[in-house]
Amino acid sequence: MPSTLDPRKEKIHEIIFEADTPAGKFFDVTLMILIILSVIVVMLESVDSLEDKYGKIFFALEWFFTICFTIEYGLRLYCVYRPRKYALSFFGIVDLLSIIPTYLSFLISGTQYLIVIRALRLLRIFRIFKLVQFLREGNIIVRALLASRAKILVFMLFILLMVTILGSIMYLVEAGANEQFDSIPRSIYWAIVTLTTVGYGDISPTTDFGQFLAAFVMLLGYAVIAVPTGIVSAAMMQERTNKPPPANTKSCRYCSKEGHDEDATHCKYCGEVLKEP
Amino acid sequence: MPSTLDPRKEKIHEIIFEADTPAGKFFDVTLMILIILSVIVVMLESVDSLEDKYGKIFFALEWFFTICFTIEYGLRLYCVYRPRKYALSFFGIVDLLSIIPTYLSFLISGTQYLIVIRALRLLRIFRIFKLVQFLREGNIIVRALLASRAKILVFMLFILLMVTILGSIMYLVEAGANEQFDSIPRSIYWAIVTLTTVGYGDISPTTDFGQFLAAFVMLLGYAVIAVPTGIVSAAMMQERTNKPPPANTKSCRYCSKEGHDEDATHCKYCGEVLKEP
Amino acid sequence: MPSTLDPRKEKIHEIIFEADTPAGKFFDVTLMILIILSVIVVMLESVDSLEDKYGKIFFALEWFFTICFTIEYGLRLYCVYRPRKYALSFFGIVDLLSIIPTYLSFLISGTQYLIVIRALRLLRIFRIFKLVQFLREGNIIVRALLASRAKILVFMLFILLMVTILGSIMYLVEAGANEQFDSIPRSIYWAIVTLTTVGYGDISPTTDFGQFLAAFVMLLGYAVIAVPTGIVSAAMMQERTNKPPPANTKSCRYCSKEGHDEDATHCKYCGEVLKEP
Amino acid sequence: MPSTLDPRKEKIHEIIFEADTPAGKFFDVTLMILIILSVIVVMLESVDSLEDKYGKIFFALEWFFTICFTIEYGLRLYCVYRPRKYALSFFGIVDLLSIIPTYLSFLISGTQYLIVIRALRLLRIFRIFKLVQFLREGNIIVRALLASRAKILVFMLFILLMVTILGSIMYLVEAGANEQFDSIPRSIYWAIVTLTTVGYGDISPTTDFGQFLAAFVMLLGYAVIAVPTGIVSAAMMQERTNKPPPANTKSCRYCSKEGHDEDATHCKYCGEVLKEP
Repeated sequence: MPSTLDPRKEKIHEIIFEADTPAGKFFDVTLMILIILSVIVVMLESVDSLEDKYGKIFFALEWFFTICFTIEYGLRLYCVYRPRKYALSFFGIVDLLSIIPTYLSFLISGTQYLIVIRALRLLRIFRIFKLVQFLREGNIIVRALLASRAKILVFMLFILLMVTILGSIMYLVEAGANEQFDSIPRSIYWAIVTLTTVGYGDISPTTDFGQFLAAFVMLLGYAVIAVPTGIVSAAMMQERTNKPPPANTKSCRYCSKEGHDEDATHCKYCGEVLKEP
Repeated sequence: MPSTLDPRKEKIHEIIFEADTPAGKFFDVTLMILIILSVIVVMLESVDSLEDKYGKIFFALEWFFTICFTIEYGLRLYCVYRPRKYALSFFGIVDLLSIIPTYLSFLISGTQYLIVIRALRLLRIFRIFKLVQFLREGNIIVRALLASRAKILVFMLFILLMVTILGSIMYLVEAGANEQFDSIPRSIYWAIVTLTTVGYGDISPTTDFGQFLAAFVMLLGYAVIAVPTGIVSAAMMQERTNKPPPANTKSCRYCSKEGHDEDATHCKYCGEVLKEP
Repeated sequence: MPSTLDPRKEKIHEIIFEADTPAGKFFDVTLMILIILSVIVVMLESVDSLEDKYGKIFFALEWFFTICFTIEYGLRLYCVYRPRKYALSFFGIVDLLSIIPTYLSFLISGTQYLIVIRALRLLRIFRIFKLVQFLREGNIIVRALLASRAKILVFMLFILLMVTILGSIMYLVEAGANEQFDSIPRSIYWAIVTLTTVGYGDISPTTDFGQFLAAFVMLLGYAVIAVPTGIVSAAMMQERTNKPPPANTKSCRYCSKEGHDEDATHCKYCGEVLKEP
Repeated sequence: MPSTLDPRKEKIHEIIFEADTPAGKFFDVTLMILIILSVIVVMLESVDSLEDKYGKIFFALEWFFTICFTIEYGLRLYCVYRPRKYALSFFGIVDLLSIIPTYLSFLISGTQYLIVIRALRLLRIFRIFKLVQFLREGNIIVRALLASRAKILVFMLFILLMVTILGSIMYLVEAGANEQFDSIPRSIYWAIVTLTTVGYGDISPTTDFGQFLAAFVMLLGYAVIAVPTGIVSAAMMQERTNKPPPANTKSCRYCSKEGHDEDATHCKYCGEVLKEP
């Protein structure tokens, strides 16, 4: 636990990382608006007719947003006590990934579209508006999914085995009569499209036996779709009875962890003093 | 609480707003039939072959229905004690919106089709037939959805972030080889079509990596569809144990609120005397 | 309660209506096989290439099956004490409907395909094999659905209102630019195809705003699909705890009702003596 | 219970069938990698452009894998006390089926693609990594599905009856105007595609009444999809409260059964001495 507190770093940390003071809230709201605007600019840029007309404005705006976010990323690194920890956290990585593509577009053209990854930064939105209720509900969903992650993985492995085998059988049945089933990987793609009930129709069986088999795959998918739903429903119902975790935006300057109780004065993970309320 | 009761207003209120007397029931049933007929007329009007043949009859009927509903709207405004309150309530707005389009069609052609919004007035149907059972069941659904609205919102935001990122990646992968993915917004449209398992097939990936990615999106959608179902199932099961609200068609003349107990003599929201049973 | 028991009627009733004796079981198994064969014949008859080749055999078989079922229907009417009651019961109507189309095909060609309604007679299959377990499970499903029928009806009405309004708006948006949306009824068809996530793609929006709106409809459908699932899940879980009804094939000769306890000697609905075990 | 233990057989059994010793684990991991590689080779072989280029390498690799798996299958037969029991067990049959197709491809060309059935051998993956948690979760899913198998069967029979009747009616309605509905079996295929919400769009109604009927089928499918989900959700929730079975990789040399407790020294099914820990 570091004993000396640099008041300037303190102040910046409070503004950038937390949203409990007016300055912090103003910063975060501005940030959100910039992120949304920058994502919209990238989207419009990809529309050829608009790019032809406003290409230069889009280019300028893109660089403006990227420079803003670069400065912000620098400040974040500067004001935490352990920059490495922040840089390797989920949001630290997202923050970095959302500025790299613009710089990279000098070297490889097209990469600028990757900055839509900035959209992920919007996940911070719940912190900003102190949407305690939403934070809690989001937590319930996440924990229900985590609690059932083993079941979902087992189920997904089973689905993968199934589509591999079904796709291969379909390839044997249709390959001769139907050009669309031209390889096993493509047939597996068809099996996934069918089993998940998406059903594009870009690949569909034409032989009688192929359609019979496809009908079987669909009915199977019908029964199978019930499994993940059952898993999550059961987990969700379980989760309801559990005590929700504390929901505020307190963030430790030292280890960048959140989830501290309302009355906590020290970080429960590293002992660092938390900002006095 | 207004002390004097105008017996004529009283009578009209009883007939138009409630459905517990023979006259009130007759009025409501007639109204429902008129609404259904007027919606059917609008639908048929949009079929070119029928419009060519019976255009004039449709036009006449449309105006007949609109004039009926305009008179009814006027009476509703007249007989409640606080017309403003009614005008701004859900049904008040729907009632108004369902007469405006016909008048508007003088100015802007095509708007007459908007009067299908009249269909919403049919939501009153449950009141008419004293479908207490249905009122209760409908309430359970609504309350279950309201109870889980925060979770559904969080989930929807997450879906929006996901389709934005998935759509952009798909644009990068397919844009060169596939004309269908001609901009990021269109790719996001594709991602929504795929993730929700609708799968029109108007836009579908053609490159190998694109199909691989699409298969991944589908499997994701498979797991993700379980979440809203889990949320609503859990809420629905919770709701089952709660006490249902009273279900009759008593309606306060003063504040237009409903949901009064069977033995209530005064409005529980404003103290106004309710119609003696 | 009729006091005299005609032993011949008794015997026929036991064979045709029940499946607890070897003769009764043999009769029912034969019947099932005949039904399945006759449905297959109708299906094959509709395939042009097979009809050209084996048309005469199919025609002969169809009449053979129909005559068998007509005799059986006559015997059923003969051996119950109240033929009218049987004739108006669910299976009585199905039994009649499954012989009419062949006779009707003399008058109106094409109607012979309607005899696939015979397939419904297969619902008797559970009785035959004394599939007590299955009878019970089927009952649980049926009762869960019955218990939630009010909710499902309310939900369906809501869906109908929604697709009417969404379809009309889509008609306004797309009608000019897209021939596929040529009338409101067709646009409502599109809305149903989209909201239920079927997504044929025979009708799909082409304008930017149309696709935006369609994306919104899909996300709505995503949330909305959770509702019937939640309703049925909750009902199913409730149903689990209830006591299952008795499951055997005892059938009253007088009122044709089933569901008697294992040790019952008199019909609990009309007092008629049940066949001694 | 055999009294003499052949130490060589003992050793081989420990390595091949169990995964608790370093040698056993190494064997199983190698096996998994070989299986995955061999499945990938078969997939690539089906892509024409790759087959043209690397056909010979693929052929050689395929035989290499098949010979490996043949030796392994021989060893498995050799080291268990009752080879017949193993040969007829689920994994015994899968192991055999995954080597036959290559040999069969001498006689019937094309059958080599069937060896993707090898993918099923990957189900052993959970044993290898001692994924006790996953074994348990997988068991919960399987038992929930087994517990509701009667309900799912009843439901599937009902779906089959429904699509038969709906498909036939659709054939009557569309056959004249729409070439796609050219026989009842094809119309039933359409009904399955629609009811399961897959919706390829390769067959879709074009007449007004046909589209009306299709809309009805979709709304039905919407309600019906809730049933299997409800069944599995209810079963899953039930299963949660039950005690999970023991999860380790102990396997009896005599009867090949698994599922022994951690402290078991004798097989609970045949009394055979289990490998000392």
